[in-house]
Amino acid sequence: MVEKNDSKVFIGKKKAMDYVMAAMIVLSKKPVRLLARGRSISRAVDVAEILRNKFLKGSDYGEILINTETLNNTDGTNTNISSIEIEILPPKK
Amino acid sequence: MVEKNDSKVFIGKKKAMDYVMAAMIVLSKKPVRLLARGRSISRAVDVAEILRNKFLKGSDYGEILINTETLNNTDGTNTNISSIEIEILPPKK
Repeated sequence: MVEKNDSKVFIGKKKAMDYVMAAMIVLSKKPVRLLARGRSISRAVDVAEILRNKFLKGSDYGEILINTETLNNTDGTNTNISSIEIEILPPKK
Repeated sequence: MVEKNDSKVFIGKKKAMDYVMAAMIVLSKKPVRLLARGRSISRAVDVAEILRNKFLKGSDYGEILINTETLNNTDGTNTNISSIEIEILPPKK
């Protein structure tokens, strides 16, 4: 995971619009990174597209990273889960 | 959508492994693009990670594109749906 000055918004199981609002607040000042795992990945992509097409026209994608994270289950086994990281850059002024 | 010589694999509702196999066949010769819409986006990311980590070590991501497609419903309304396009490059020999 790249460490930068970007703020992160973790996408979970709430409605897409909740995360759009959270990301908007960050994007007024600096780039934002949307992070999601597993089934929430599609929601992260929805949030990114809503931001870019409806709320902040002119904002653009930065890095898009895909990775696998290993979770340790309580019974000692491991589960691999895919993750995505979508960087959104604010509109150029 | 970028037009290149890449072959495309459309990710739908089947098991991830079915698409991994389809993509493997293409990747033996040239880059492949995984395409998915809506809820299948998470599955496309899974397929990409399985390919890269288990079956074709050394393969890497090319372009990752996120877009919105507009579908025309039978009742005349439109639905916006997010889509993703993940390019995977075969391992360098």
